[in-house]
Formats: sequence, C-alpha cells, structure tokens
Amino acid sequence: MKLSEMGEFRFLKKIMRILDENELGKFDDAIAIKVNENYLVLNIDTLVRRTDIPPGMTPHQIGNKVVVMATSDIIVKGATPNFFVASITIPKEEDVEYLEEIEYGIKNSCSKYGIKFFGGDLNDGLDLMISGVSVGFTKKIIPRKGAKIGDSVWTTGYFGETGAGLHYLLKGGIKTRNIDGILKKVFEPSLPFTDGKILLEIANSSIDSSDGLSISLHQLSSINNVKIVLEEIPIAENVINYASVNEIDPIIFALYGGEEFEIIFTTSHKDEDVIETFKSYGYKPPHKIGKVSEGRGVEYRGERVEESGWEHFSEQKNTV
Amino acid sequence: MKLSEMGEFRFLKKIMRILDENELGKFDDAIAIKVNENYLVLNIDTLVRRTDIPPGMTPHQIGNKVVVMATSDIIVKGATPNFFVASITIPKEEDVEYLEEIEYGIKNSCSKYGIKFFGGDLNDGLDLMISGVSVGFTKKIIPRKGAKIGDSVWTTGYFGETGAGLHYLLKGGIKTRNIDGILKKVFEPSLPFTDGKILLEIANSSIDSSDGLSISLHQLSSINNVKIVLEEIPIAENVINYASVNEIDPIIFALYGGEEFEIIFTTSHKDEDVIETFKSYGYKPPHKIGKVSEGRGVEYRGERVEESGWEHFSEQKNTV
Repeated sequence: MKLSEMGEFRFLKKIMRILDENELGKFDDAIAIKVNENYLVLNIDTLVRRTDIPPGMTPHQIGNKVVVMATSDIIVKGATPNFFVASITIPKEEDVEYLEEIEYGIKNSCSKYGIKFFGGDLNDGLDLMISGVSVGFTKKIIPRKGAKIGDSVWTTGYFGETGAGLHYLLKGGIKTRNIDGILKKVFEPSLPFTDGKILLEIANSSIDSSDGLSISLHQLSSINNVKIVLEEIPIAENVINYASVNEIDPIIFALYGGEEFEIIFTTSHKDEDVIETFKSYGYKPPHKIGKVSEGRGVEYRGERVEESGWEHFSEQKNTV
Repeated sequence: MKLSEMGEFRFLKKIMRILDENELGKFDDAIAIKVNENYLVLNIDTLVRRTDIPPGMTPHQIGNKVVVMATSDIIVKGATPNFFVASITIPKEEDVEYLEEIEYGIKNSCSKYGIKFFGGDLNDGLDLMISGVSVGFTKKIIPRKGAKIGDSVWTTGYFGETGAGLHYLLKGGIKTRNIDGILKKVFEPSLPFTDGKILLEIANSSIDSSDGLSISLHQLSSINNVKIVLEEIPIAENVINYASVNEIDPIIFALYGGEEFEIIFTTSHKDEDVIETFKSYGYKPPHKIGKVSEGRGVEYRGERVEESGWEHFSEQKNTV
C-alpha cells in the first residue's frame, strides 16, 4: 500500500505502539520531559517548499514561517520559548542571497519572540526543506486533554484569512480591495503572544489551530470525549468581502483554511477574568466562541461541523 | 553567487554573526544550554537520500543511521543521550512498509543506545529526507577547544572501511573477500559507546570523526591552535586487503573516507589510565594515534596531512 492511500493519520496510528511515552503522551505534536522541577517542551516541524510555501513568499518570510510553525506548538502547552535550531536542505544551485535571507528571516522572527537562534545544519537536496526545532520550558503543562463540561472555548484571533489568501493564490480567486491584508496573513503568519505562560493561569486545555479551526476543535472534542458547541465562528473582517465577491460562504474559509497559528483554549474561569488576564499581559483580548458540553463532535447552530481540512498524504481534496 | 560556488563552510562563516552564542560557542555541530546544574546538549542532523544513502541500504538501516548521526555529536560532548525525535519527509508514492521499516530502524537503534524515541513529524516531499534530533544531558561539557600541548590523541576505533565501502559501491571498485565486513560499516554504522560520560573522566577535548579523520583532526588543530602529530594512522584490518587489490594507498581511505562515527579525544592522562578507564566501563580499548604539539596543522611522519574530505555544496572532488 502506498502512503498516499493510507494517509498520514492512519500511518501514525499504526506506528504509535513503537513510540515511547513522553509527558504529553504519544498523540501530541510537541513532546515534553521533566527536567528537575520544570518541563522541557520541544517541537520539530518541517516546511517543504512544494507544499508549504505559497507562490510569492519571500525567503525572509519563509524563515519567519518556520519559526512560527515550530514555536506555536510549544507556547500552546504553556511554555516560554527558549531557543530555536534549523536544519536547512536546499539545492546547491540556489543563490547564496536566497539562503541568507531565509536565515535573516529566522533570526528576525526569533528576536521578535525573544528566542535565541543557535543555527543548525545545512544540506544539499532536491527541494528546499527546513526542519525547525523550538525548545522551551514551563512549570506546568497545559494538555489537550483537560477540557471540562461547562468550560467556555476561546480563540486568540479571527479565522479565514489564510484560507481566502490561499484560495486567491492557488485557485484563481477574484481580487478584492482588501487582498493585501489577507495575503499578509498568508505570507507573514505570527504567534498570538510570545510566551505561553499566560495559559497556565486560565486554560484547562489548549491546542493550536494550524490544522484548521474545524480539525483542531474536532481533535479537542475527541481527545476530551466532549461536544464543542460553537456559538460564534470568529471570521476575520477581511474575509467577508472576499468571500462575498467570490461567492463562497465565509464560514468555509474560517473553518477549513488551516495554516493559522491561533490558540484555542478552554477555561472554567469567568469571561471577565479571561479578558482581564489577557489585558494584564498586554495581549489582545481573545474571543469566546462556544462551550464544552456532553456528547461528541463539533456543532454550530444545531448542525454538525464537518471534520475536514488539509492533511498531508491524503488524496482527499480540501474543502476550500 | 550560487551556494555550490561558495561552499557550506564559507556560507556558515558568513552568517555566523547573526547567531546567538550557546554554551558551545557558535562553531560546534551540537548546541548546549545550562539547565540548573546540568547542560542540555542537542544536535540536529539531516540525512538526504540522494547524498547520504548509499545504494543497497535498507530502510531499517537508514533509520539506524540517522540516530547514529545525530547522537554522535552529543555523546562526543560527554552527554548521556535521553531522547530522539525525527521529522521524516517522504514522497507519498512510497510504500507504507518502507516508511514503517525506517521507523523500526530508528526505534531499534534508540533501544540499543538506551534512548527514548518520541516520534516526530511526517511530510510529503520530492525526496526522502530525515531530520533527527538527539537530546542528552551532562554535568560537564567536553569542548573541541581544550587540547593541551603534550596531550596524547586517541580514537575509539579504526578507520577506512566506509571510505573503501563507498569506493566499492560508487566507483566500481574490485570486490575482495572481506567486502561484507567493509560494507557492514557503511550500511550499519554504530556509536563507539552509548554514553558520553566516560569522556568526562579523561578527555580535555573531543570531536567526532563524521567529516573524516583528516578534517576532524584539522578542526581540532585549528580550534586549539596546536599541531597534531600523528604517530599512527589507525587503519581497519579489512581495508588493507581491499586497498591492495584496488591499488590505492589504504591511508587514503582512513584519512579521507568520512561517515565514520568514532570519537577522537585528547587527554593528559597516562596511557594506562585511559585504557583502564575504558575497561572499567566495559568499552573496547581506544587507540593512541599521536600527540598535541606546538604549531599548526596535522603531520604524519614529517609530512603535512592534507585537509580534505567530503563537504556538502563544494564542487571539489573527494580525494577517494
């Protein structure tokens, strides 16, 4: 059987039994080990030019994206990022300036988030590919499993811009006046905050949204054996107009776009407390999008939200 | 300018200034940070099918090689390996069994060295490529810089088999009766020991030999601003016969072959103490190959040993 027929998820399930268990179990993107009183949290994420780099992205932006991708998975655990290393594979026919710009992009992004950039490894290969490793520490881990019935569900940002942006870039969507704002989100993704520490104060469970809002909510639901009842789908302002001109339901972009690095968390704290905590850290206020209730799956206005998004290896088409 | 014209080493020197300094400086393959009383040592190493996987290597052997590559650079610092993660990029047309065998190879190798395998990341790409991250801890770091005039220089093994094996596989060398032994070293590289701790007792400086014996000795010489005087070149038994049949000086294979994961260290301890320490750990005795003296470069029997080997990106031909 070919990998494309099996899909990434089924393959990972298959080899799960040979993996050793870490403090986050075996199913998380990140891994954690106890080091004295703290946890070391590490994540490796690889960006492949052919699949992860949209046309028009500069090498500087590529460098930023790999830092954001790898670090998102550790701040969502509550960790304070500490350092970053990258292994870059690149065709040797590439210009020196191109690789240099990638390194500057990594460095700038690391500086922005207070992360030390220690370099890494360089290799010759057929396609540009960057494996980024982000390492941080935390006193406590916010797991994916921990949502309680009655918790409210929050996100750190609005969704849909990367979905709309990729639709424009890859599927020949009609240009709209706010396309620059939309593309900025595709080309220059950013983290909602530089330090996961804030989550230790409020979150019962958390997950990042890089696989798409729908898939991430479904994962939360399935891991916690609960139903997520969406009361509001947080659609980015820019998406409304683009979706209308292109005659696509904006909810589609928000739920199934992916490649957005917002944090989704559940909490039993009062709404005012959550908002106040974010304010005290100087972060933008998060958005309450729903509730954790008994049952399974994800619901919006009485209807089941499809579990769909972008999966490596799968032949299945993305909804967008 | 293209990367192939500049070469990896010159590029790395160019971007060195943007890197943050870690406990190993900026020039080491591994990186280290202080965590309470200990050091965390981490290394990322990437294996690319097109350049790092000789024809005939099984997927199980590929899995082993990536563990050995990444871990070699941390045990040479004196670290006790703790865990390993891998990011695998592979064409989705590949068979599931092939990828599964790679994962088993990683797992088996980790088990052999007492390393926990926590999984990692999976991506679709044009060529098989595995970034392995090995993490360990140590109370003290054995640096590359630390060799003292008068130190003796030791290696944990004999050299030349991978050079001869790659010559046979890639350059059509004549088959000899001991070819299986030679190829075993190419296909199933191993670490000299499972724990770098022994080095803390005896070594003033150390480096692994994965870039080739000559290049590694030159690096030690240059970092420490000393001359390495070789008294003996430790040639593996199997290489003598292969080299003679193929009419190549066996020293060429031993000095310039590369891809051998032995440890080279300098020590001011007496020879008996070094041997005794290795014995007390149950490890094979190391080989004394020379002395650290004043000057620069590497010398063997009064002649300068060329600084040559395999460098990614460089157009320069390997000596072998």
